[in-house]
Amino acid sequence: MTSHSLKILPLGGLGEIGLNMMVLECEGECLIIDCGLMFPDTQSLGVDVVIPDYKSILQKNIKAIVITHGHEDHIGALPFFLQDVQKPIPIYAPRFARELILQKLKGAHDKHVKVKTVKDGDKVDVGVFEVEFVETVHSIIDSMALFIKTPVGHIFHTGDFKFDPYKKKHKEKIKKIGKQGIHLLFADSTNVEREGASLSEEEIKKNFDKIIAKEKGRVFISSFASNLRRISYLLDLAKKHKRRVFLDGRSMLSNTQIARELGILKSTDIITDNPQEDNLIFIITGSQAEPYASLTRLAYRSHAHIKLKEGDLVILSSRFIPGNERAIHKLLNHVCEQGARVLYGDISDIHTSGHAHRKELKLLHKMIKPRFFIPVHGEYRHLTMHQALAKEVNPRVHSVIAQDGDVIEASKNSLKKIDHIEVSHVFVDSIAGDDLENTILKERRNLSEKGIIFVVVIRNEKTGEVIEGPHLYAKGFLSQKKHEELFEEAKKVAFKYLKQEKSIEELQEEIRIGVRRFFKSRELKRPLVLPIILDI
Amino acid sequence: MTSHSLKILPLGGLGEIGLNMMVLECEGECLIIDCGLMFPDTQSLGVDVVIPDYKSILQKNIKAIVITHGHEDHIGALPFFLQDVQKPIPIYAPRFARELILQKLKGAHDKHVKVKTVKDGDKVDVGVFEVEFVETVHSIIDSMALFIKTPVGHIFHTGDFKFDPYKKKHKEKIKKIGKQGIHLLFADSTNVEREGASLSEEEIKKNFDKIIAKEKGRVFISSFASNLRRISYLLDLAKKHKRRVFLDGRSMLSNTQIARELGILKSTDIITDNPQEDNLIFIITGSQAEPYASLTRLAYRSHAHIKLKEGDLVILSSRFIPGNERAIHKLLNHVCEQGARVLYGDISDIHTSGHAHRKELKLLHKMIKPRFFIPVHGEYRHLTMHQALAKEVNPRVHSVIAQDGDVIEASKNSLKKIDHIEVSHVFVDSIAGDDLENTILKERRNLSEKGIIFVVVIRNEKTGEVIEGPHLYAKGFLSQKKHEELFEEAKKVAFKYLKQEKSIEELQEEIRIGVRRFFKSRELKRPLVLPIILDI
Repeated sequence: MTSHSLKILPLGGLGEIGLNMMVLECEGECLIIDCGLMFPDTQSLGVDVVIPDYKSILQKNIKAIVITHGHEDHIGALPFFLQDVQKPIPIYAPRFARELILQKLKGAHDKHVKVKTVKDGDKVDVGVFEVEFVETVHSIIDSMALFIKTPVGHIFHTGDFKFDPYKKKHKEKIKKIGKQGIHLLFADSTNVEREGASLSEEEIKKNFDKIIAKEKGRVFISSFASNLRRISYLLDLAKKHKRRVFLDGRSMLSNTQIARELGILKSTDIITDNPQEDNLIFIITGSQAEPYASLTRLAYRSHAHIKLKEGDLVILSSRFIPGNERAIHKLLNHVCEQGARVLYGDISDIHTSGHAHRKELKLLHKMIKPRFFIPVHGEYRHLTMHQALAKEVNPRVHSVIAQDGDVIEASKNSLKKIDHIEVSHVFVDSIAGDDLENTILKERRNLSEKGIIFVVVIRNEKTGEVIEGPHLYAKGFLSQKKHEELFEEAKKVAFKYLKQEKSIEELQEEIRIGVRRFFKSRELKRPLVLPIILDI
Repeated sequence: MTSHSLKILPLGGLGEIGLNMMVLECEGECLIIDCGLMFPDTQSLGVDVVIPDYKSILQKNIKAIVITHGHEDHIGALPFFLQDVQKPIPIYAPRFARELILQKLKGAHDKHVKVKTVKDGDKVDVGVFEVEFVETVHSIIDSMALFIKTPVGHIFHTGDFKFDPYKKKHKEKIKKIGKQGIHLLFADSTNVEREGASLSEEEIKKNFDKIIAKEKGRVFISSFASNLRRISYLLDLAKKHKRRVFLDGRSMLSNTQIARELGILKSTDIITDNPQEDNLIFIITGSQAEPYASLTRLAYRSHAHIKLKEGDLVILSSRFIPGNERAIHKLLNHVCEQGARVLYGDISDIHTSGHAHRKELKLLHKMIKPRFFIPVHGEYRHLTMHQALAKEVNPRVHSVIAQDGDVIEASKNSLKKIDHIEVSHVFVDSIAGDDLENTILKERRNLSEKGIIFVVVIRNEKTGEVIEGPHLYAKGFLSQKKHEELFEEAKKVAFKYLKQEKSIEELQEEIRIGVRRFFKSRELKRPLVLPIILDI
């Protein structure tokens, strides 16, 4: 009997929170789990999104893509991947994720992409794999874990998950799966830094009930538009307290529209225009101070129809995604300046995470008792902490810390890294539709910190004599008007190099280095310098 | 009897956390409280520090500057202010703050600046003001609150403070002051978002005791170098556990040197070179992932003498200052990649804030029972929340939310805003020694998001005929090699404008707008465009 082996290739999501994409390969057939994007650090450098570097798998025999849930970091790269892979691949996704995917693909080139709906308990054959979808609790409805039967053994992939004491059946199901014997576990590491357990959505609901009961004036609740469960009970609470609701923000409107079409949201007291009543409940976008979102416009007084005023209460029913703290703080300040009061995670329990905390993760490991373990969905420190937690619960588990591009081989008796493929983060300027090269990004970063000086020299083609220049033009560096003498000296520095008998390229390079060195010698920052010598 | 009045002019610290500077003016005489700087959001735009806009007070009759403590946001702008005010002003500062100020002024122009040391209980006459210094607990030693007697009534200014259950005498002193009747209270709003009370430094010490007892290997503790109290007991704990200590990082070494000179630190088991022992305790800089700090070098493997390894424990004994989260996360990931373990605020009580939480603030207001109240040291939302908290405790207090530039008048029976002076944040490129104009910053921001294109055209001076060009040179925009056709089209667009009989300036402006519009029409971002027409 040949010994089976399975290769595991994470392309994203191990080493960063975002761009989740994992490839399982067995007997020449590939199964892809999720295909997401990430919003980059480099937002300020004009980069819009980051997607996984999947070029190494484009030629492989991909039997299917399975999607665990509809968050952007699990589906956002699909349009790009499907365009690049240039062959039809079956996609299996739970209901709400499927709607969001189809929305993304509208207007895209592949009109013949088929996305099949899966629900809790559905099993699909994907080549040598059998994938069973297992509903879990997360911050978006229709979230799935995956119970995958492979020639090597059973795999359980949690997707993004948490436990909710009010939703016992999910926990029971996972317990049953654990009893079947799990060879290899992939589990969500996002909140491994957090002690205890995440709050139940029911607790949040109770808090909102109290808040809405107490508030006589308007209440603005910003939430992730994908958190339909929360939006749904907020609508119920509004109805209970005889308050009408106004929804605002592009993704809020489109997501709730999808939810209504799927029969998930039933509430009728949503008004769609002229939000003038004094005790309305507003459910809006902008919890991350996104540039054109509803709450951001309200904070910056640029909303076309609504103005904040004293007596209003603004609630951020969300967490502060790392990197957005300062933008959200500014937003909160501007809201307070208009006389409204604010409530947010720091000062009130009006949000709970969609990811398991340590206590929940320990329970997971206790129930699953896997032989092998690969932590996923986290930055490096999360992965190492999760590895340590796993060992606390199951001292005999063997785990491997993988990073994007590592090739891990799983067999009946081992789990080890056997190879590494160089992968990078692929930056997409979604306007240019282009990959932004690292050079362009590096140029922008330097430009942003130091500015640029353009040096123009015109020479007589025949004699090499300088006709015009060097002329210096600075942007984002120092004011030339204020520093005339300095720039005159810099011109002389550049001029000196021109006396040499060298090629244009060599002279340009020497001027570039020389001018930079000159400014550095004056205790200034070294700007980008772009010399151009034109012979006419 | 003339009725007295006092004017209050905050120049910084009300509306942002940083650049604290407040002016009290009575009967033509001014007292300045603190003179600090702020590290800007715009760090990435090459701006180094932000200082208050104090130009409106440079000509006033300033009797003294009193300093509450030695943090940068209270003393960092002094060198700039003293240089600009160009007259000698007495400065009163507590011991450690004074040393840090003198260190800053070394090599500065004003060698004759006198900084007088004040300690707990000292009273100084500053014109019509009598200022008594009251020692408080903060995250730097020698921190003072101010009890100021004025013709209008008693003022109490908390400085930056917290209560520590192990340091009862500070609380008792403030209680006594409250009994004297406080007309106007200024209080620290930084942590008004946080429930409960801040941990005592004694609790942190106990935790460190346990940690160091348990760790057999090396322990790296990064802390703010100004937190001498913590550094002092860490040295004691190291001694207790028979571990030698290695200090690393410029400010760590200079601050502990000052502390030794002042007799504050006595410990002798600090080694200064060759840190090779296997169970050393390292006390280092880098808790905010500052670019050249010790821990940052260790994380990025660029430290000249020390390498992290498996078995090491790295502790961030500090908070994550908003804005630094992502840099610190990256640092933690890189530390984990080298096999070390990490401990930080999220997962362990190894730091406590220097600012009072809500419970402590309520206690303050209960003890002081001021008639009037102005919240300070916070962003707008902190100030409004603190106002609400004050009213909870003392329903009859009258408070005013002031922002930088507001002129507040205090009299025996009223407190109100009477004027506003336009003040801005003054950005200083500490290398250029220059104020960076908003234009330069704006240029850098645009450069960073969209890049720049230089358009060079050379014409025959006499005939106006185009000899060379238009040539386009792009930086940080798109790769010209990859988009040759696009740039050729852009050249044609620029060329069209040259046929007109207009001045060089007009033509350059039209080319600038036209080229930008061209790229926009291709669904691309609009870069900066700098056209240069040279007639030779």
